[in-house]
Amino acid sequence: MTEAVLGRVRPTEREREELLALEERLLARIGDLARSRGLDCQGMLVGSAARATWLAGDHDLDIFLSVPEDGDLGAALELARELAPQHEERYAEHAYVHATIEGFDVDLVPCYRVPDATHLRSAVDRTPFHTKYIAARIGGLEDQVLLLKQFMNGAGVYGSELRRGGFSGYLVEILVLRYRSFAGVLSAASSWRPGETIDLEGHSAVEHQDPLVVVDPVDPRRNVAAALTLDRMAQFVTSSRCFLGCPDLSFFFPAETPPLQDQELRDVLARRGAVLILVEFDSPDVVEDVLYPQLRKAEAAVRALLERNGFSVLRSDVHSSGQTKPPKAWMLFEMEVAKLPLIQKRMGPPFWEKDHLSRFLSSHPSVVSGPYLEGGRAVVEVERRYSLAVHLLKDQLSSLSLGKHLSLQVQAGHKIYSGQEILAVLDPGFRQFLSRYFSARMNMC
Amino acid sequence: MTEAVLGRVRPTEREREELLALEERLLARIGDLARSRGLDCQGMLVGSAARATWLAGDHDLDIFLSVPEDGDLGAALELARELAPQHEERYAEHAYVHATIEGFDVDLVPCYRVPDATHLRSAVDRTPFHTKYIAARIGGLEDQVLLLKQFMNGAGVYGSELRRGGFSGYLVEILVLRYRSFAGVLSAASSWRPGETIDLEGHSAVEHQDPLVVVDPVDPRRNVAAALTLDRMAQFVTSSRCFLGCPDLSFFFPAETPPLQDQELRDVLARRGAVLILVEFDSPDVVEDVLYPQLRKAEAAVRALLERNGFSVLRSDVHSSGQTKPPKAWMLFEMEVAKLPLIQKRMGPPFWEKDHLSRFLSSHPSVVSGPYLEGGRAVVEVERRYSLAVHLLKDQLSSLSLGKHLSLQVQAGHKIYSGQEILAVLDPGFRQFLSRYFSARMNMC
Repeated sequence: MTEAVLGRVRPTEREREELLALEERLLARIGDLARSRGLDCQGMLVGSAARATWLAGDHDLDIFLSVPEDGDLGAALELARELAPQHEERYAEHAYVHATIEGFDVDLVPCYRVPDATHLRSAVDRTPFHTKYIAARIGGLEDQVLLLKQFMNGAGVYGSELRRGGFSGYLVEILVLRYRSFAGVLSAASSWRPGETIDLEGHSAVEHQDPLVVVDPVDPRRNVAAALTLDRMAQFVTSSRCFLGCPDLSFFFPAETPPLQDQELRDVLARRGAVLILVEFDSPDVVEDVLYPQLRKAEAAVRALLERNGFSVLRSDVHSSGQTKPPKAWMLFEMEVAKLPLIQKRMGPPFWEKDHLSRFLSSHPSVVSGPYLEGGRAVVEVERRYSLAVHLLKDQLSSLSLGKHLSLQVQAGHKIYSGQEILAVLDPGFRQFLSRYFSARMNMC
Repeated sequence: MTEAVLGRVRPTEREREELLALEERLLARIGDLARSRGLDCQGMLVGSAARATWLAGDHDLDIFLSVPEDGDLGAALELARELAPQHEERYAEHAYVHATIEGFDVDLVPCYRVPDATHLRSAVDRTPFHTKYIAARIGGLEDQVLLLKQFMNGAGVYGSELRRGGFSGYLVEILVLRYRSFAGVLSAASSWRPGETIDLEGHSAVEHQDPLVVVDPVDPRRNVAAALTLDRMAQFVTSSRCFLGCPDLSFFFPAETPPLQDQELRDVLARRGAVLILVEFDSPDVVEDVLYPQLRKAEAAVRALLERNGFSVLRSDVHSSGQTKPPKAWMLFEMEVAKLPLIQKRMGPPFWEKDHLSRFLSSHPSVVSGPYLEGGRAVVEVERRYSLAVHLLKDQLSSLSLGKHLSLQVQAGHKIYSGQEILAVLDPGFRQFLSRYFSARMNMC
């Protein structure tokens, strides 16, 4: 089976040659440009392309442009702009240049050339050390890395992007170095529990509270798996168990989810009998690593708003999709309780706190019922401000603190759909998301 | 104002004479019957009638029939039966005889004649000591007792019966002995908090956890206020504060609540927007002191059933009324959440408990969604057995453990009304109860 997988994910000879040729041309051109500007700036290929562990079709080329520790990142960024005139600028900790060159997605990332990975001036300065560390050791294990990456792809846990909270390529490579094979990693992972620690160099320098701790071989204070969430770790562990018990190609290449059709959506709504509330707005123009953490925070803020007001949420999720223009973002809330009585209880102080009690009573001059006593405390029943969750959201969403980018977009305009109204949202990416949301099936053993 | 109150609650001269005459006749007849049977059985008037502290119109005469410590209560009960041929038998700890004689409600209660109140053979043996203790000290304070009893009546806290959890007549008398006047009691009570302790004889022998502790002058181990609930204590405290701040005759004689009319009931249901569920069944033939604790326990059992199944209760109450034949009992549940989705989440074990997890998964062969992960735990979504609270009750009420008497009655037959169906219940006592339930207003300052 592994050969069948490798046959599909191992880059072809031609792909390798093209990538190598492009790399050489770009590095040469960087050297020329630097010389002509009198700039100390060195180009270096990093990432999976640099260690022959990229998945076929992943046409990513990450080139770092390093300047001396006291150098000027801005000058390196200028050089990158000239190197790729057709580019867009993106932002992580610093600005970098993204361009499509000869069918490859090329990132040109300025960084500082520091003496070792424990003395960084910016977060990206560590990356060249990772490349050197892995490149020196991974020889002969490349196929194992490819298998593990594709298995994690299939399980939905590959990609350290904050969107997913999964395993980074570097983390995959360290796991293969540790357990020496794809099967070895899965077998070890089957028994992982939170707190599992891997320390290749045996030089761990601080304690981490993360679910999985993989001490960075080039920086003893850093956990390579810091971005991995508990649930993505769990998903990998349970998928590993299932695969070892019953290996199948579908673990690597699961069937694609078709978008949910109208009638299916009607059926699933009727079967679940829960009110769905969907918030839709234009996605801000930021990378997914910035967008998703904000969407997750906004989701939590909306849940908290709903719960503060007595409603309860069965499950929620967020999604963004560029399949329509402008790209949209969605927050979906499936309600356990979307409707409450028109009145609500307000608990007051215990009866013996005279002053507190009289303030409580005078702050509720108009009550529907009460005051009465419950467990020695004064209670009144007053009109509830929002008896429908959807009204609460329509009224208060815009004033909620949703993070810089999202707040602006939501205030600029948003739609709230409730129940069957969701049928009006036709974006196929959203319909796929709905389909996955409703099935919510993971490999679990 | 106190004269106006006393004018209405102080027994008239004629009432006193009638009571005295009846008492004398009954005690004489008891003497005759005991002699003719060769039985050592002494009659003794106890309770408020014995210390001239009964409220006008309260035609209760409690006569205890004491036998020696090694005597036969059965023989005393026989004597009581002969004394009042038209009687009914009632049961507290032991059987006793209740009869209506010349317009008075007469209880004839067999008891043991013990040397002092700390050596009882049955709970009622203490009562004669209470009577002796109070009778020897209350002279001159009778009016203060009457005022306090009527005030507590108005506040709804008089009556130690378990139905109400309020203040007993004996407790009222001790409070008056302690604070020497009606106003003195109210003024002290205004500052009570849970744990307040009163110990006239300074001989407290055990620690009590009750909200109010009043050490029994005739039995240092007993708390006279043991049956007083925290909320009835609180109600008295807050009423006392209100009255002292703004005295008014209405505290003693609140307006009677008229039964709720159909249109008022429709209006209040619409205004509250909450689903009411009413359980109705024939009241078992037991005294209220037995009935109400059982109703309260059944109420708690039903609430627990509802909450175990994901529903939530805003408020609930119980009532029984003899205005229709046979007398009915009701449990009323006002729902905050009466309807839930057709599906529900089931939380499984954490992912690293392999065996537990595989048992969980195989015990849920058919799921609507999942399995997925939440916080490292497996989760599935399955069909919910009851999405309507009223269906849950209709299905499971009969199999709930509701206490001996109620379980029998509920199984013999009950009706469950939901929402507007409650309009079909016309019993005026029930409609009064509903009116009080919806207003739920107490004096609170």
